[in-house]
Amino acid sequence: MSAKIFPTAQDAQNAFYEALERCDLEAMMAVWSEDEEIVCVHPAGQRLAGQAEVREAWRRMFAGGPKLRVRITQQVVIASVMLEAHSVHENITVTGETRPRPPMVATNVYLRTAAGWRMIVHHASPAPGQPQAAAPAHKGPPKTLH
Amino acid sequence: MSAKIFPTAQDAQNAFYEALERCDLEAMMAVWSEDEEIVCVHPAGQRLAGQAEVREAWRRMFAGGPKLRVRITQQVVIASVMLEAHSVHENITVTGETRPRPPMVATNVYLRTAAGWRMIVHHASPAPGQPQAAAPAHKGPPKTLH
Repeated sequence: MSAKIFPTAQDAQNAFYEALERCDLEAMMAVWSEDEEIVCVHPAGQRLAGQAEVREAWRRMFAGGPKLRVRITQQVVIASVMLEAHSVHENITVTGETRPRPPMVATNVYLRTAAGWRMIVHHASPAPGQPQAAAPAHKGPPKTLH
Repeated sequence: MSAKIFPTAQDAQNAFYEALERCDLEAMMAVWSEDEEIVCVHPAGQRLAGQAEVREAWRRMFAGGPKLRVRITQQVVIASVMLEAHSVHENITVTGETRPRPPMVATNVYLRTAAGWRMIVHHASPAPGQPQAAAPAHKGPPKTLH
């Protein structure tokens, strides 16, 4: 799909968020592994699996053109030789809005392939804005599930 | 923390959901890597990082005693020698409720450690119940973020 080589998982991640900001579908898909075993979960979205589903969702999302800025904070990296998991907070600002949205928490998993590091999992979901001083787990049934 | 050895990532995952159903805190923490680099995101919850935060959240969640049954479906496994990522749907039934809750989508990442396979990331979030025939990405601002 692309000759782009990412020497590190972090390079792949940087390219992922750049493609997201630019709404560049080809650059986005060049970040992903070419394997069928890829998984993408957008906030409040269906779990997408495989090239066709993942690509189609990004295509729809990018149709409106660039409007987001994403600032990554609080990254935790768990690395092995062939696979890395990055947990990050995505601080998203939308063009025309005066204040940033509440952060998303994302789990990004990268695989070292013959063509360099590629994304295999992106799972993003809304994170509450406040630190967990009062435990969300006690506030109601949906949050106690686990 | 425990001498429990999980020979495969799937064994660790089975033990994870058994511990969750039984509300067994020690069994739950025995599934996790003993490293500080562990990450847990409960549905609609703060990102938890490190042993203390992860343990405390499970402790609070388990305080009410067993009330959940979890049936895992639609598993996608991405495996390398040292690390595996499992994407699953968690179909949760709560004791006393007549119908199952909408599924959660979970990304579970396992690391092969000196003490067998252990969990390093659990990220769960609500998944919409219906297939993505009409794209959620077009329904409103929070879903278009990415």
